[in-house]
Amino acid sequence: MDLFQKFSKIETLIFDVDGVFTDNSLLVTETGDFLRVMSARDGLGIRLAVESGLRIAIITGGDSVGVNKRLQKLGVVDVFQKIDKKIHTFNTYIKDKNLDPDTIMYMGDDLLDLEVLSEVFLSACPRDAAPEVLKVSDYISPFNGGKGCVRDVVEKVLMAQDKWKY
Amino acid sequence: MDLFQKFSKIETLIFDVDGVFTDNSLLVTETGDFLRVMSARDGLGIRLAVESGLRIAIITGGDSVGVNKRLQKLGVVDVFQKIDKKIHTFNTYIKDKNLDPDTIMYMGDDLLDLEVLSEVFLSACPRDAAPEVLKVSDYISPFNGGKGCVRDVVEKVLMAQDKWKY
Amino acid sequence: MDLFQKFSKIETLIFDVDGVFTDNSLLVTETGDFLRVMSARDGLGIRLAVESGLRIAIITGGDSVGVNKRLQKLGVVDVFQKIDKKIHTFNTYIKDKNLDPDTIMYMGDDLLDLEVLSEVFLSACPRDAAPEVLKVSDYISPFNGGKGCVRDVVEKVLMAQDKWKY
Amino acid sequence: MDLFQKFSKIETLIFDVDGVFTDNSLLVTETGDFLRVMSARDGLGIRLAVESGLRIAIITGGDSVGVNKRLQKLGVVDVFQKIDKKIHTFNTYIKDKNLDPDTIMYMGDDLLDLEVLSEVFLSACPRDAAPEVLKVSDYISPFNGGKGCVRDVVEKVLMAQDKWKY
Repeated sequence: MDLFQKFSKIETLIFDVDGVFTDNSLLVTETGDFLRVMSARDGLGIRLAVESGLRIAIITGGDSVGVNKRLQKLGVVDVFQKIDKKIHTFNTYIKDKNLDPDTIMYMGDDLLDLEVLSEVFLSACPRDAAPEVLKVSDYISPFNGGKGCVRDVVEKVLMAQDKWKY
Repeated sequence: MDLFQKFSKIETLIFDVDGVFTDNSLLVTETGDFLRVMSARDGLGIRLAVESGLRIAIITGGDSVGVNKRLQKLGVVDVFQKIDKKIHTFNTYIKDKNLDPDTIMYMGDDLLDLEVLSEVFLSACPRDAAPEVLKVSDYISPFNGGKGCVRDVVEKVLMAQDKWKY
Repeated sequence: MDLFQKFSKIETLIFDVDGVFTDNSLLVTETGDFLRVMSARDGLGIRLAVESGLRIAIITGGDSVGVNKRLQKLGVVDVFQKIDKKIHTFNTYIKDKNLDPDTIMYMGDDLLDLEVLSEVFLSACPRDAAPEVLKVSDYISPFNGGKGCVRDVVEKVLMAQDKWKY
Repeated sequence: MDLFQKFSKIETLIFDVDGVFTDNSLLVTETGDFLRVMSARDGLGIRLAVESGLRIAIITGGDSVGVNKRLQKLGVVDVFQKIDKKIHTFNTYIKDKNLDPDTIMYMGDDLLDLEVLSEVFLSACPRDAAPEVLKVSDYISPFNGGKGCVRDVVEKVLMAQDKWKY
């Protein structure tokens, strides 16, 4: 099955946060809080995906009320934070929601994403992912983390399904 | 009519915020607030435009007291935030202010700007605009969003009108 | 007189802030405060300059308690903020401190620096200065604003005076 | 002894903060606080190093509760802040902990790191280190400060010791 066919079958897009929605930057305040840098253009991508009926989920090791709020405003309901073993969360999620595994895409950028990336139907990563991730991914976005890679895969899915209106 | 002639007729410059005054970055705090990254050089551009008698307006989907304050300090009075259908705000604004449509420039960078960009007399975008926007814009600035594209179009207008003093 | 000779005569280095100590970014918070991005490496440059007996002054249109604090910690005493006509502050400063005009360097990046740059003994700017500034500057640093241009001119001065110990 | 052999002997990695864990940016707030930009990918590198039994220490001129918190969360115990003469701290640390000098790596990027870099068994620096630092370093990482140079040396050490599991 070629990439285009895979994109055309996707109903659920699952994303890591750091390095995917962000460029891996953590802005550390004097008190130890973090700020993360997200992209307005990725945000619109997520909104369009949700409006088109795609399911969006987040599995991240991080823990941020702010990121959570931002994602919820964009229409993302399923956000799993502080996850150490992502593959467990991934498998439980698919089972709980009774999802067909052959309709799932996962995008991640670093070592902790490797297990999910090698099991998922369609694995994707930003251009600046860790070398180990680049090696196992079906699709390498031409965009970096935090610089449009999320928007890119949303477009790919919607285009392959003839739902991209622009 | 060539680009230079179009620039020479502009009396009102309308801008999107994210991706035009910024590089699309949203710095998300732990509590879900946003910081936006604007350019001091664009700021001077806006001040010079206002001092030269040009009318500046903002139509944005975003909502930020801080951006609003910053723009007001620079002399921008007409700021429309949280706008979903920009074309409605655009048309109402022109009508309310009784502006000649052939004196209006609009600069935007993403899908939600497409309707206005295809109706306006002079459409402009930053170099790193979405491909759909690049396609319909009369003028593509050599500068990216947040990196001088606003200053660039202000200069273009003032130069074409022989009002650039530098 | 060649550039090296000019650098060897400098006793006072005067800097603009935005676009010189920073890359022109203004991080706007939701409440309208600004954060500015400065460089630790420039900071060390300023400290070494002060320790070597050079006089450092700041003339800026901006207004930031934080930038002021940072500069004072580095040993900069003469900080002029919220300055509209920089040339007046510049001339008054030189007169008040009874400085020899042929020992002064000024570094700026934008239109509001042009008057001072064309009067000062040694004019300098970052590589990414406005074109009008690049045109009138004696020395164009190979470093951008906020990315080492301050450190660069400090080194140039100390090296030309045989005071660079590294 | 070649570089690979040196990496294989390292038991303790000591890092500077600004320019190594960060890109030298200091985000200055209106009140004079600093934010620093760290990398999530470097963070994972440090966690893996600690889990593999490597000793991690920090010697920095800076002073930030937030950076300290972040490093402690990653498992770093020995953090020396506000250090003016790094070589003193370095020598005292090695003596106090009774460490074998031929098992120590130090990574720094600027002039204040030069003394330690020229004494340590294995000296390392990011690609964008100051020229004086590049000149004396055994290993120049292909990654810039704040952009993965920390992760890079952790990987090099773990790979040389056959402890890299990916």
